[in-house]
Amino acid sequence: MTTERSRVGVWFAGGRGSVATTAMVGALAFAQKLIERTGLISEHPRLAGVALPDFADLVFGGCDTVETPLADRALQLADAGVIPASLANAVSDDLTRVDGDMLPPPHTSAHQAEFVASIERNIRDFRDRHDCARVVVVNVASTEPPLDHDPAHDDLDELVRALRGGRAVLPASSLYAYAAFRAGCAFADFTPSSGARLPALEQLAQLEGLPWAGSDGKTGETLVKSVLAPMFAMRGLRVRSWAGTNLLGGGDGATLADEHATASKAASKGRILREVLGYDVEAPLHIDYVPDLGDWKTAWDHISFEGFLGTRMTMQFTWSGCDSALAAPLVLDLARLLATAHAAGRVGPQAPLAFFFKDPAASDEHELAAQFDSLVTWAHDIGGRP
Amino acid sequence: MTTERSRVGVWFAGGRGSVATTAMVGALAFAQKLIERTGLISEHPRLAGVALPDFADLVFGGCDTVETPLADRALQLADAGVIPASLANAVSDDLTRVDGDMLPPPHTSAHQAEFVASIERNIRDFRDRHDCARVVVVNVASTEPPLDHDPAHDDLDELVRALRGGRAVLPASSLYAYAAFRAGCAFADFTPSSGARLPALEQLAQLEGLPWAGSDGKTGETLVKSVLAPMFAMRGLRVRSWAGTNLLGGGDGATLADEHATASKAASKGRILREVLGYDVEAPLHIDYVPDLGDWKTAWDHISFEGFLGTRMTMQFTWSGCDSALAAPLVLDLARLLATAHAAGRVGPQAPLAFFFKDPAASDEHELAAQFDSLVTWAHDIGGRP
Amino acid sequence: MTTERSRVGVWFAGGRGSVATTAMVGALAFAQKLIERTGLISEHPRLAGVALPDFADLVFGGCDTVETPLADRALQLADAGVIPASLANAVSDDLTRVDGDMLPPPHTSAHQAEFVASIERNIRDFRDRHDCARVVVVNVASTEPPLDHDPAHDDLDELVRALRGGRAVLPASSLYAYAAFRAGCAFADFTPSSGARLPALEQLAQLEGLPWAGSDGKTGETLVKSVLAPMFAMRGLRVRSWAGTNLLGGGDGATLADEHATASKAASKGRILREVLGYDVEAPLHIDYVPDLGDWKTAWDHISFEGFLGTRMTMQFTWSGCDSALAAPLVLDLARLLATAHAAGRVGPQAPLAFFFKDPAASDEHELAAQFDSLVTWAHDIGGRP
Amino acid sequence: MTTERSRVGVWFAGGRGSVATTAMVGALAFAQKLIERTGLISEHPRLAGVALPDFADLVFGGCDTVETPLADRALQLADAGVIPASLANAVSDDLTRVDGDMLPPPHTSAHQAEFVASIERNIRDFRDRHDCARVVVVNVASTEPPLDHDPAHDDLDELVRALRGGRAVLPASSLYAYAAFRAGCAFADFTPSSGARLPALEQLAQLEGLPWAGSDGKTGETLVKSVLAPMFAMRGLRVRSWAGTNLLGGGDGATLADEHATASKAASKGRILREVLGYDVEAPLHIDYVPDLGDWKTAWDHISFEGFLGTRMTMQFTWSGCDSALAAPLVLDLARLLATAHAAGRVGPQAPLAFFFKDPAASDEHELAAQFDSLVTWAHDIGGRP
Repeated sequence: MTTERSRVGVWFAGGRGSVATTAMVGALAFAQKLIERTGLISEHPRLAGVALPDFADLVFGGCDTVETPLADRALQLADAGVIPASLANAVSDDLTRVDGDMLPPPHTSAHQAEFVASIERNIRDFRDRHDCARVVVVNVASTEPPLDHDPAHDDLDELVRALRGGRAVLPASSLYAYAAFRAGCAFADFTPSSGARLPALEQLAQLEGLPWAGSDGKTGETLVKSVLAPMFAMRGLRVRSWAGTNLLGGGDGATLADEHATASKAASKGRILREVLGYDVEAPLHIDYVPDLGDWKTAWDHISFEGFLGTRMTMQFTWSGCDSALAAPLVLDLARLLATAHAAGRVGPQAPLAFFFKDPAASDEHELAAQFDSLVTWAHDIGGRP
Repeated sequence: MTTERSRVGVWFAGGRGSVATTAMVGALAFAQKLIERTGLISEHPRLAGVALPDFADLVFGGCDTVETPLADRALQLADAGVIPASLANAVSDDLTRVDGDMLPPPHTSAHQAEFVASIERNIRDFRDRHDCARVVVVNVASTEPPLDHDPAHDDLDELVRALRGGRAVLPASSLYAYAAFRAGCAFADFTPSSGARLPALEQLAQLEGLPWAGSDGKTGETLVKSVLAPMFAMRGLRVRSWAGTNLLGGGDGATLADEHATASKAASKGRILREVLGYDVEAPLHIDYVPDLGDWKTAWDHISFEGFLGTRMTMQFTWSGCDSALAAPLVLDLARLLATAHAAGRVGPQAPLAFFFKDPAASDEHELAAQFDSLVTWAHDIGGRP
Repeated sequence: MTTERSRVGVWFAGGRGSVATTAMVGALAFAQKLIERTGLISEHPRLAGVALPDFADLVFGGCDTVETPLADRALQLADAGVIPASLANAVSDDLTRVDGDMLPPPHTSAHQAEFVASIERNIRDFRDRHDCARVVVVNVASTEPPLDHDPAHDDLDELVRALRGGRAVLPASSLYAYAAFRAGCAFADFTPSSGARLPALEQLAQLEGLPWAGSDGKTGETLVKSVLAPMFAMRGLRVRSWAGTNLLGGGDGATLADEHATASKAASKGRILREVLGYDVEAPLHIDYVPDLGDWKTAWDHISFEGFLGTRMTMQFTWSGCDSALAAPLVLDLARLLATAHAAGRVGPQAPLAFFFKDPAASDEHELAAQFDSLVTWAHDIGGRP
Repeated sequence: MTTERSRVGVWFAGGRGSVATTAMVGALAFAQKLIERTGLISEHPRLAGVALPDFADLVFGGCDTVETPLADRALQLADAGVIPASLANAVSDDLTRVDGDMLPPPHTSAHQAEFVASIERNIRDFRDRHDCARVVVVNVASTEPPLDHDPAHDDLDELVRALRGGRAVLPASSLYAYAAFRAGCAFADFTPSSGARLPALEQLAQLEGLPWAGSDGKTGETLVKSVLAPMFAMRGLRVRSWAGTNLLGGGDGATLADEHATASKAASKGRILREVLGYDVEAPLHIDYVPDLGDWKTAWDHISFEGFLGTRMTMQFTWSGCDSALAAPLVLDLARLLATAHAAGRVGPQAPLAFFFKDPAASDEHELAAQFDSLVTWAHDIGGRP
């Protein structure tokens, strides 16, 4: 990263969604130095000195089934209170330029092999067009239902054979991961979908020498859990039950209203308690779609715990956050960090990126402070100047 | 600690208060193996292997202006839901035995030099009577108002001269610290009072080669702050305001209704935000005395923060805890750890005990996870088996 | 009520459950004048002068599949913090006397006609044994799943024919209502089950000249809704969404974990918003079974509303109540009021008892203040002294 | 109101403040039929048929020490999320026209007699200029500290003498009431200040035959209290403590940070509990100024109550409201209703307007539902068509 001075592409699956649009508005505004860099991990004082791509060096592309121009999407987000209207206007022309790199995905009725080939071509073209040193592919498309197992998931050769045979064995998120790796790109899955987390795709990542990360960005309630659960553990207080309710109205909310997808998200949210506390806790969890709330999410958690001599106590918290505003900077952080890891030759799932995820790949660490220490060390390793 | 097999005394200033009584009920119940050891740091898996005094080897004494028998105090606490009635009954005889070691303090009208001498004598007698290897003195008496500075606080010789001259220059908490050090004992202040935190007393601790710790036990709202504030910092979210309200009805509540004492507590609670976040935050804090709530404390915190592109979000939490049940195990932990540190030859304020305090002596570390790591390392240093 | 001086029986379906046991402990303690009469509507100052049965004149009986002695049930409730242990002990002998009037129900494998006849006989015997002027039958047994319609529900003759023909067309709650009416008793359903709310049973009540009430006692979250929803309506604030989560651990919680029963409860809880506000509101509602919480219920409601010029605002509330302690006095109130209504010759569903129910029979009034006014007027009508 | 077809003036003391500006933006938008009439009592279905002034017939004037043009104030409120930017723009020209009727008040260094004369002249000129049938004067200026008693407050003749003698015996709010009555106008005080609530001013209102109302608009926490406190009372649940915390950042917040003014507000908020419940309740109440929160107010209330057999339970609520958006429609309602009362010949404090106030004049009724019934009846009395 130190001698070469060049562009890094960020290619979004779901590039006209709220998260991607918010991320691009922010990055473009930072490039123009219009606003302070709040909410970014990659700008944390403890990461000072890590050589990351400049915002001015990022270029954006991707695909989406939606066709609304990005400048219009930005205005919608401004109306919803997600981003300031002044910023949406200030980067409007930049967003219009990105529209040309934001293509519709191939028809899903296509053979999956063709789908992958088409996406791979898109990514390669995008990289060439902008003369990027490298591209990071990030999945911010809709959450998928849990995946039924297929033997083709477990072995790359099997997978290749299945696809050639015209079998549809991969969900969209994994098709994007597959295409990313074939195009020689790092990949991150910000959703709870399977993405790169199939043995066959991990083999491909190893083969191509590419780093990846996932899954399910930790934006709100789980972020809080990742510090409160360790607090109870350190303090020797036994958690008896931890009930959670999430009200959300955004696009993700609509998807999660589908019970199947909810199951996928709830599972990834539940993992943390068991792994941090070391015992099973009654932890009912609901995700409700309340369209009225728009891009805002309100979570209520009720924790019952037991202290000295068995005395019962409770803690409750309410988190009222704007999901896209919480997710967008993490997506930019991941792109900057994975680009740097790629340049540094890192391969496979990057455990030190656990800080970003509800369901971290290759890591059982769920305590936020420990995750942060690990992230800081790793970032200096991959991006330290000599 | 490894070869010698002997008793450790725990001598409480305020020994018939809710915290001390709850602590003793618990320790006596543990000694009889009546109940599980929940809520104790000293029993945390990461401290496994640290050689600490057994509960069966602890003996209790102290002083209090109140004269209610400890067994009656225990029943009062059972009625208030702080401890199970069955435990209060099970350790009733043991508590009655402790009554003989729980003396009234000297009249405060006495010269302070005589007060110190009398307390010193009490502690020495208690140690001899029970053949203790060492004694840890713990202040759990009422919170004192902030201390006005006196030059005698800054130098041991000056202090000795002032006391000899009949000047009353020390608050009760510091008189106990003074007496503890003169009797060759480690000292902990669990209240926000000045305790050992005067240069003159620190000189005495150095002279006598004694360890000490303080101040203001971190039992509820501040415990939560010590993980949430770092969370906002790690995540790059800027805290804009953090308002807190504490409703409490116990003896401490009555004391804190006095505005002066509140100022002392609020100051120690406020320190953490500034030191963890690195900037000043509007943080109004109230402590209300609501006798109806008894030993239970309810805290409500409202946090307003700013994310990516300036989007404003909020978090609220309510903590409903039993203060004595939260404080009591910490007092036992401190006694066990300080006894071990004393045996290991540690001298002066023990910074790694910052985990226990709102206003830790000799430490600027306020992040709970970092405090815990430091505590674990230190505990193995002082109490590790060869 | 004024000249006759005699006993009133209260006969519980589910008589060893938490609600019935708590109600009996209270009534027996009031009869002995052991404690203040808190939490009772029938003791409200605005009902002063209404001639209601004295607590000393109430006698209790009923049936339950459980066989635990009532005195033991009372101790269990004391351990759970529902009632004071001292009261459980003080009325222990009285409870043991009630055990003799608390029979197991007939086998449900019996023909329903025989089931009804057996219950009717039990009630009649109980009334004779204690020389009661009248008996009120109250259903506090487990919540039933929603009832599938059967033509026999709509007409008394059809129903009689169906039962004679050996068809099982009624749920238990309705069998109890049937038996109550045949035995000449008033009936109240405190659960969301169908109880007396079938046209065929209403015909029977009219035929026998008996009053009845139901259904689904309004103990916690819905009580609050019944004042907050009118507040928004009176103030012209448009409610946009009202999401609710209920965590409960008692016997009812276990039943409601069954999705079917939940549907029944959620429907009755949802009715109030639509009828008070006059428009449909997004109102997701969850009931979670969290055994850890025991007899305590915590409800969290999140209300999003719109004010002047469309400004969006929110309100949240948390209700932490002991369900049995909230329900028990209402059950006693209903028994006293229905006995008085019976004596006064009232027949059919008593709309002025809407105050007590989530899903009031024969009433569309859901505003608590209006319900209370109606209750007060009615009570003075039926129980006023000349 | 039915035959005469003419204008009604609304004259604001504090006319460039957030409440007045928001009220004017709304009224002007309603006149143009730009938006739905949400949040208004005067548009409630139960007031249908009451002949109130049309929004198109309202004209606005007043005074303020601030000189920012109203169109700019509206944009500031749009930036703060209080009103939609589109509305602020749509009524911009109308607001600019109002600027000419919004004068600076006389210097407070002037003799109070001259101050009153000058305000009276302003009001009369405003009425003449716009050919208004009548004018309602509304005080929405800053909250004043509690008033020290002066004998001149108790008698109109004394008051006149005191003012002639150059004594400054009235606070600003009462000077406005005085001037309003001398100009023949109805008066409402929306703040907790003394306003018309001095016997001398009430004599003047009687003499001039004018209606008035006050004081302290019920916008948020107290609105909720006015339905929850009756709920506890109706249900026979004994409230043990009711602690409240208010965080607010608007202009009013800054004023209330002054301890004196807080005392005034807290007293008026506390009255309701005592009067509704009929007994004294521990009810600590804080008002904190948190500039970060802008025009938004967050209140947290914690209620501890006792049910059947003494079981302790709790309820908490959080109210997150925009104070100006809650207050503004009430100010318009009061203007419309007082103009109608004036036309109908009503004189003195209008008790049926208690619905609007924390500290209602001439009324001890604090239950919202009862207040609403009384308001509805009265409105039809004064504004019913024959």
